[in-house]
Amino acid sequence: MKALEWMGDSLKILDQTRLPVEIKYRMAATYEEVAEAIEKMEVRGAPAIGAAAAYGYALGAIGYSGELAGLSAHMEKVQHRLAETRPTAVNLFWALRRMEDRLRDQHEAKELAEIRQALVAEAESIAEDDRRVNRLIGEHGNAIVTAEANILTHCNAGALATVEYGTALGVIRAAQQAGKKVHVYAGETRPFLQGARLTALELMNDHIPVTLIADNMAGFLMQQGNIDLVIVGADRIAANGDTANKIGTYSLAVLAHAHGIPFYVAAPTSTIDLKVPSGQDIPIEERNPKELREVFGVQVAPPEVPVYNPAFDVTPAKLITGIITEKGIVTSPYSVNLLKMMVRS
Amino acid sequence: MKALEWMGDSLKILDQTRLPVEIKYRMAATYEEVAEAIEKMEVRGAPAIGAAAAYGYALGAIGYSGELAGLSAHMEKVQHRLAETRPTAVNLFWALRRMEDRLRDQHEAKELAEIRQALVAEAESIAEDDRRVNRLIGEHGNAIVTAEANILTHCNAGALATVEYGTALGVIRAAQQAGKKVHVYAGETRPFLQGARLTALELMNDHIPVTLIADNMAGFLMQQGNIDLVIVGADRIAANGDTANKIGTYSLAVLAHAHGIPFYVAAPTSTIDLKVPSGQDIPIEERNPKELREVFGVQVAPPEVPVYNPAFDVTPAKLITGIITEKGIVTSPYSVNLLKMMVRS
Repeated sequence: MKALEWMGDSLKILDQTRLPVEIKYRMAATYEEVAEAIEKMEVRGAPAIGAAAAYGYALGAIGYSGELAGLSAHMEKVQHRLAETRPTAVNLFWALRRMEDRLRDQHEAKELAEIRQALVAEAESIAEDDRRVNRLIGEHGNAIVTAEANILTHCNAGALATVEYGTALGVIRAAQQAGKKVHVYAGETRPFLQGARLTALELMNDHIPVTLIADNMAGFLMQQGNIDLVIVGADRIAANGDTANKIGTYSLAVLAHAHGIPFYVAAPTSTIDLKVPSGQDIPIEERNPKELREVFGVQVAPPEVPVYNPAFDVTPAKLITGIITEKGIVTSPYSVNLLKMMVRS
Repeated sequence: MKALEWMGDSLKILDQTRLPVEIKYRMAATYEEVAEAIEKMEVRGAPAIGAAAAYGYALGAIGYSGELAGLSAHMEKVQHRLAETRPTAVNLFWALRRMEDRLRDQHEAKELAEIRQALVAEAESIAEDDRRVNRLIGEHGNAIVTAEANILTHCNAGALATVEYGTALGVIRAAQQAGKKVHVYAGETRPFLQGARLTALELMNDHIPVTLIADNMAGFLMQQGNIDLVIVGADRIAANGDTANKIGTYSLAVLAHAHGIPFYVAAPTSTIDLKVPSGQDIPIEERNPKELREVFGVQVAPPEVPVYNPAFDVTPAKLITGIITEKGIVTSPYSVNLLKMMVRS
């Protein structure tokens, strides 16, 4: 089960909104369809969104049939459309910038076909980088997992959130492959239930032991001494280490801190946004109130009840034990150490 | 909309499992039907469970048509059946003991009819006490609500969880009636969604401003300074003040403590169980894994995923700012002050 697959002239996208009940794919042949799939969360997870947007950008060029002179203006429109889909996921912008740079490199190209090919190659390279990066995150992260570990995760930072392997779940995969006895508690992750629908499915498919809990059970499990480690993904990491991730992550970080449990973030360096000084500067997307009033179209609350539905929250760096990236594990002081790592590359 | 209503020869029970989508009542004419309604959570909330069980006990005598000599053995069976429905709710046992005492008082009665009448009167008195007690909890609790307050609550400790008025929501009602500007954040309370289905409905019906959130958003709201006060109900309070309440309550208490937000429990003294020294001795009910795998019959997780589904957790007394009862507000040291209050009565 792959989140994304490039089919030569279209992007095959697994529609994750209906999992695990229904396995449905969308063949996105235009950038608009890719944008829609991102907006509707058919494809989700910061790294997967980045790769999907890159392919969407390439589809923008493939779908353009005007004069070569007009391509640049058209691609600006494409980039803008793809960028507006999810404001918090920073590797969306990172991937689009990489695509834009590649387009600029092609300024001497005489043929549209040549440019299209270069853009598809760049999107393929972004996807390939993501695969490689996730394996490295797994390798580095394995170091912090003990021989037997009950690991709590939130949302889905797995293969379904990336091109392959996963970030937080990549670490767990690597630990299991290294012969460690891991067991995962998956928070169901209301309102969109990515933990129940995706993480549970993904881990069961890979024979990694998993137990599903409601998000509000996490504190009780910690109190009982049943959680050794928390690992989550990230949608954006500020220069000071403050991390935006799926709503509920901050509560878990506070709970982990209160119980003396290590709390790790696993994410590619493309998630780090050095232009954003702290978490206060990270925009938080608010989503449709229906997500709380309904579950899979079934009404669970009064239809008119006012709802607050932020998609993300920000965990301050001081609650994060370490950030696991493809370049190694960064720890406090993050302002210094994140910059050092990013400059080293 | 009343949770319970005695109809002379049967108990009318609002089936809360289908709210707010469907308003359905069950006319329970036997103690077995009352037991079923409690087990299936058609009636829920510790005080309402207590009152329902009392009426169920009376129905046990009404349904008995044998010799007077056999009544006592029959009533033991009735009591046992009603007691096993929900292990955590202590006022269930408290109400059944009151009914049992009343039955014992009738040992000189010559007619079954006379005993039945006495038991119905006792159940009515338990229900009437609950109404009175909730009003008093509201009056005492009003003292801790500021002139303008954003109050977070969990589950439903409202009119629907009691015979009338509510405990945690009773305090909020009293504060609004006293002219204070209150606004409630209701955690949806997975897995059974009592917050989304019941608290949201109940507050909207009473024109008390309410905003629905997923349980995992509470920490983020606190971080943003949007919660002034947390008030929850209780299913059982140990002699040292440790409090069992709906799963998720403990997480909220830890989060409130980390953010310096007052955390109050509102409950009748019938919820206090002096025979239980601490929270460690409170039995925690585990419920059907389906509650997490399905929402209103709609599958939201892999059908075979292992699930952990405790119905309650225990909040240690040290995280509780005060316990609001009909006899006043108890604060630390709870071991001393709860005992003092209970002895005073």
